[in-house]
Amino acid sequence: MLHPNMTVNAAGHLAFAGVDTIDLARQYGTPLYLVDEDGVRSACRMYKSTMERCMGSGAEPLYASKALSFTGLMRVMAQEGMSVDAVSQGEILVAVTGGVDPEKIYFHGNNKTDGDIAFAMEKGVGWFIVDSHEELQAVGRIAGERGIEQKILLRITPGIDPHTFEAVNTGKIDCQFGVPIETGQAVQFVQAALNTPNVRLMGYHYHIGSQIFDAVPFNDAAAIMLDFVADCKARFGFEPEVLDMGGGPGVRYVESDPVIDVEAVLENIGRYIRTRCAQLGLTYPKLLIEPGRSIVAQYGMTLYSVGTVKTITGYKNYVSIDGGMSDNPRYALYKSKYTVLNADRPGQNADFLCTVAGRECESGALIQPDVMLRRPVRGDIIAVAVTGAYNYAMASNYNRVPRPPIVMLKGGESYLSVRRETIEDELRCDL
Amino acid sequence: MLHPNMTVNAAGHLAFAGVDTIDLARQYGTPLYLVDEDGVRSACRMYKSTMERCMGSGAEPLYASKALSFTGLMRVMAQEGMSVDAVSQGEILVAVTGGVDPEKIYFHGNNKTDGDIAFAMEKGVGWFIVDSHEELQAVGRIAGERGIEQKILLRITPGIDPHTFEAVNTGKIDCQFGVPIETGQAVQFVQAALNTPNVRLMGYHYHIGSQIFDAVPFNDAAAIMLDFVADCKARFGFEPEVLDMGGGPGVRYVESDPVIDVEAVLENIGRYIRTRCAQLGLTYPKLLIEPGRSIVAQYGMTLYSVGTVKTITGYKNYVSIDGGMSDNPRYALYKSKYTVLNADRPGQNADFLCTVAGRECESGALIQPDVMLRRPVRGDIIAVAVTGAYNYAMASNYNRVPRPPIVMLKGGESYLSVRRETIEDELRCDL
Repeated sequence: MLHPNMTVNAAGHLAFAGVDTIDLARQYGTPLYLVDEDGVRSACRMYKSTMERCMGSGAEPLYASKALSFTGLMRVMAQEGMSVDAVSQGEILVAVTGGVDPEKIYFHGNNKTDGDIAFAMEKGVGWFIVDSHEELQAVGRIAGERGIEQKILLRITPGIDPHTFEAVNTGKIDCQFGVPIETGQAVQFVQAALNTPNVRLMGYHYHIGSQIFDAVPFNDAAAIMLDFVADCKARFGFEPEVLDMGGGPGVRYVESDPVIDVEAVLENIGRYIRTRCAQLGLTYPKLLIEPGRSIVAQYGMTLYSVGTVKTITGYKNYVSIDGGMSDNPRYALYKSKYTVLNADRPGQNADFLCTVAGRECESGALIQPDVMLRRPVRGDIIAVAVTGAYNYAMASNYNRVPRPPIVMLKGGESYLSVRRETIEDELRCDL
Repeated sequence: MLHPNMTVNAAGHLAFAGVDTIDLARQYGTPLYLVDEDGVRSACRMYKSTMERCMGSGAEPLYASKALSFTGLMRVMAQEGMSVDAVSQGEILVAVTGGVDPEKIYFHGNNKTDGDIAFAMEKGVGWFIVDSHEELQAVGRIAGERGIEQKILLRITPGIDPHTFEAVNTGKIDCQFGVPIETGQAVQFVQAALNTPNVRLMGYHYHIGSQIFDAVPFNDAAAIMLDFVADCKARFGFEPEVLDMGGGPGVRYVESDPVIDVEAVLENIGRYIRTRCAQLGLTYPKLLIEPGRSIVAQYGMTLYSVGTVKTITGYKNYVSIDGGMSDNPRYALYKSKYTVLNADRPGQNADFLCTVAGRECESGALIQPDVMLRRPVRGDIIAVAVTGAYNYAMASNYNRVPRPPIVMLKGGESYLSVRRETIEDELRCDL
């Protein structure tokens, strides 16, 4: 199987985190999001211990909550002592509601409104990642009004293009995020931050993109950033206490994706930065990484019921399910690859080449084209693996379809953590 | 301006349906969806009167509510005597809540669950558009259990490819919708429907795609369908009382799109079908068309506040706004074109070439690349035109951003019809 938390049990059913998926579909209905809580906890612990071991005391992961954010998950993050990256008032509220210490929240975003800034300060958010001059001024002004000094990092774009998919590549210069080194604008940004009252510049943030499978692009970006650190030290005498390297390594969605040794990648990065800092005579900073996808993706799965199976003679087969782009828009948006399985006897007699289509009235509303299944019938359960990241987070009510519930799996047991939305819920804002 | 409901008022501000957009942004906040109620009503009336005049008594438009569905809009549809196309329990509930007569609701979708079918019958939905053999059986069975006879149309795929954008092209054979003529499967489908107890076959539905600008593809599809009608008449002695031609003509999003004369297109189609029916000796059926986009798109507008303006020296300019792909995912999904304007003095000194980016933490979260604006500053209001269709309908809480409210404009006045979602609303399903 794709990941160790996917197994086949004695009944011949797909089990996720040791729990029978057919039983789960029967108990909670479909479509259904599952989250392997034990798996998420193990990923948090692996990141924390590996970073502490390879990158020195104080190095830590921030869970990037835009990948998946709900109160029950944030309770887990709080219990695991995780710091959290949040990008909106909503994500801050969920983190705080789940018990995350506001001091451990890092507030991201290319466009924080004055209302967002005031809300975050009101909640006591520890860190702002400042993305622009407008934001720097607004943070300084609002912090001044509140009589506080706000800790900030500056978002810098090192100008790396790690040859990943364009839409999730934010390390390149030509994008809406951060301030680039190459044009000289980042140096001005640092100078402005050092001269802005009521903010305390603690360091830099950069992010080179998503779905990167080895240490090389991370180290290439670090090399550029550390030269920049040395440049600003020479100009302003400023050295960062914190260096936030952005998103974590990629995730394995399908068998043809590489198996990623996250520990080895982290070790490699830690070694590289330590060496480079020594060579440049820089104080070794506290290192941060912001894994989101890599903490939750493989610990999520979605279950659907089959509605119709069509063979268009001479063309293609279609399996339509009771969810689709409203709960997982990633194929529609990015042509993302997914592994799809019969929940009953997965892999056995999987000789039916088909396109798995959603229930939405739009021909692009596919979950995945060209997958091999055992030919299903109406009522069969289909599992889509590795849906923990950017599925619930991006879900809509397109076609007025309610969003599925989230069931957590822990120690072989299940419990409901987000209830199923109802069609009445969808009308709650209608006047 | 792009459409007649967009004007510049005495203050030099963009007015929509005669109402000052700067005033609206101040009164209701941003991001903000606007709907020109008078315009929507005029589009409904134009469709109804033109179809009655050109296509004969009984011909009528069904409003395709997947384009935009909320209670206030359905009140308008009910008042205008519109029939409605709904694709889910949620859309049926909104239509009925707004006062639409259930007998005038047409229930679409490639994958209606048994629960969906029972819900629609419970609500008294008049018409089912049956998409597959599985559904035909389920509708017959559930109608039998309830002791009713359910009126149905069968969804047939004529096999036309109108050379429109693939993701919204559902007339081609190779898709998850309907049953194709070319393979001989549609004839079997008709036979099965005629032999299924508790259903009354009333006719056929077909849909050739979206954003079609003239009558030719509609008439090409009608030619194939009428040959099929004649074939089934010869085989089974069955003639349809109703022929539902699916979605309406396209919409003008940008200046380079053609101006569409919907009345002329409808006249052309009516004339063609009347002639063909006479030639084939067929009874002229009641004709239906399902405009969604073409009834609401140009009567919607979205207002945003600017947060940051970035010039990446030597590269590009970015204007970041307080909404984005969470309220309008159409650029992210389809690279859809939009017209973007400064709400204050639109078009004047528009010499700043920029990409309008959303607030979501994703580099693909753009509203539109390469638009010409007057260089805005933080706090300025930006208007995106022709957002009535598939914006609110496809909105998500990605990045935990609440969905904007909808304000209706009527007779030069405004009123709130859907209130702004709150971040507390977003947590209502969390346990």
